[in-house]
Amino acid sequence: MKTLTIHGSGRDSQIVVGGRLKDVASYIPDERIVVISDENVAQHYRHEFPSTEAIVLGTGERIKNLSTAQAIYRRLIELEADRSTFIVGIGGGIVCDITGFVASTFMRGLHFGFVASTLLAQVDAGIGGKNGVNLDGFKNMVGTFNQPQFVICDLQMLATLPPREIACGMAEIVKHAAIADPGLFAFLQERCRRALELDPAVLERLVFDSAKIKSAVVNQDEREAGERRKLNFGHTFGHAIETLTGVSHGEAVSAGMAIAAAISVKLELLPPDDAEQLKELLMRLNLPIRVAVDLQRIAETLGKDKKRAGDNIHLVLLQRLGEAVVKELPLNEVRALVQASDSLME
Amino acid sequence: MKTLTIHGSGRDSQIVVGGRLKDVASYIPDERIVVISDENVAQHYRHEFPSTEAIVLGTGERIKNLSTAQAIYRRLIELEADRSTFIVGIGGGIVCDITGFVASTFMRGLHFGFVASTLLAQVDAGIGGKNGVNLDGFKNMVGTFNQPQFVICDLQMLATLPPREIACGMAEIVKHAAIADPGLFAFLQERCRRALELDPAVLERLVFDSAKIKSAVVNQDEREAGERRKLNFGHTFGHAIETLTGVSHGEAVSAGMAIAAAISVKLELLPPDDAEQLKELLMRLNLPIRVAVDLQRIAETLGKDKKRAGDNIHLVLLQRLGEAVVKELPLNEVRALVQASDSLME
Repeated sequence: MKTLTIHGSGRDSQIVVGGRLKDVASYIPDERIVVISDENVAQHYRHEFPSTEAIVLGTGERIKNLSTAQAIYRRLIELEADRSTFIVGIGGGIVCDITGFVASTFMRGLHFGFVASTLLAQVDAGIGGKNGVNLDGFKNMVGTFNQPQFVICDLQMLATLPPREIACGMAEIVKHAAIADPGLFAFLQERCRRALELDPAVLERLVFDSAKIKSAVVNQDEREAGERRKLNFGHTFGHAIETLTGVSHGEAVSAGMAIAAAISVKLELLPPDDAEQLKELLMRLNLPIRVAVDLQRIAETLGKDKKRAGDNIHLVLLQRLGEAVVKELPLNEVRALVQASDSLME
Repeated sequence: MKTLTIHGSGRDSQIVVGGRLKDVASYIPDERIVVISDENVAQHYRHEFPSTEAIVLGTGERIKNLSTAQAIYRRLIELEADRSTFIVGIGGGIVCDITGFVASTFMRGLHFGFVASTLLAQVDAGIGGKNGVNLDGFKNMVGTFNQPQFVICDLQMLATLPPREIACGMAEIVKHAAIADPGLFAFLQERCRRALELDPAVLERLVFDSAKIKSAVVNQDEREAGERRKLNFGHTFGHAIETLTGVSHGEAVSAGMAIAAAISVKLELLPPDDAEQLKELLMRLNLPIRVAVDLQRIAETLGKDKKRAGDNIHLVLLQRLGEAVVKELPLNEVRALVQASDSLME
């Protein structure tokens, strides 16, 4: 078990890599607990939940909306939850995002923590204090910045995940390696197969190093005014792809990273060989580098993205494997680059 | 023009008593502005709004809900608002509460400020960084703590308010005086009529002193862990009354203060003469000290209030006019006290 700390503006957040769901109550002061989880997690782990009061959601990105948040608020009122109630989200990125948002806004904010049950949540979605819901298909349009008191990354829970879910988490690990850690990139290149087989030692390093990279960035820039934008590598395009196609977040980000790498090469920031290595690693991890959607439609959707500042867009590009750079570019230029990236992706 | 500063955990908030709506743009950095307001305000002041992009809401407590918030989010997406957009709420407490909540959650938080157009908003609702919406009639169940960058209290806008709205603002001024400032209480006792006639010099003192009391409390305790609870004097009962009867916030708080004063006397904290003076002042300000609802129903509704901590409730009582005390009492005891207060109120 290894821990990390994020120093949020509101409170500190403890990341516990290798902690266990069954021990969650020991991380919570002597308060009443309400659990928020989903059907998949409840099916496997209901017996390990710390409380009999659990709000169990359906699954899938579609439920991550204001209607679900409202249904949870109503249930919390029925349960007579109050400001001394502690909310624990047990699940993947969707459960963490909704739980964090509901807990941050119900009665203007209750204390909360997560048990991250998916690789994606453990290496990315559960960490960093961004929470929220989608609106009309636009990702995370409504939310807050607010750190959970803890994020327990229970590595043993990964055993019940389908391979596709593992691949999606790998996309964010690749992202972290690509923007900040050449050593992690090389480690993953060498242990691709063992990673996909969930070798415990390999997993522990991948999760811990990813959480470390993300924590360090968030500690520098909790509210995404600068450094944190680097974590959006692949995501500006990924979110557009997700909106347009409905593929999973990890798959969309994977294809988005391929586009961003192609643009990085086109702008002569990144050596072509580095882009090739990135795409090869993604493919070996069973992740797509292209999706069935017209690049022009991706380009058109970019205008609705949160990362836009006025008529410019903050685009995260690579200078080499392990080093990202943020460029503020006119939206129209980015749209043109996306469309031109088509020929570069083959 | 006199200013005050609230030092919020997220940012400082400037309160400008005597500032003017027409000057609002000078308080905003060089950013795109979107205005949120309501029909009443737009009817009188649309020509003074700083921007052509205005989202105009209906009026009344009923619109303060998640549906309205969602409609505003959608409009902001249509307007292609982004993180560099500045949101200005121009209106009373409802506009400020919704604007603050939407601005704090749209894209995880935009910058925002208020032009408070009602006496209630200038002395209370617009100040202090509490925002939110109601859910199923329960007040402010969903919201955040987040300070506006500025609150401009334009005293000249009060001229277009109906007398009932003025009376509602007076209820909060009485509250501030009763919990923290015997001098302000005496000032108001002596100048009741001139206050209701909107004498500019009297108004300026009432608004500034109220804002000063509230700012000082919020500076000590932004998130209502202790001192800030005193601002809830009359509100624990007032919210229940509002939920049950639909009378205005100010009227409900006025009746709630009468109940709280009666309980303070019953518990031998407050001299009976002080309670009498409080009720007399409220009546002279055209505010009710009783409403047409059964005390038992008020008592039953208390359990749903945010101020409850477990099975206890934080009740704000008076020790004298100008000094409040917070008592944590069992919910059942408070319910019994409310019902027993009936005979004391005559």
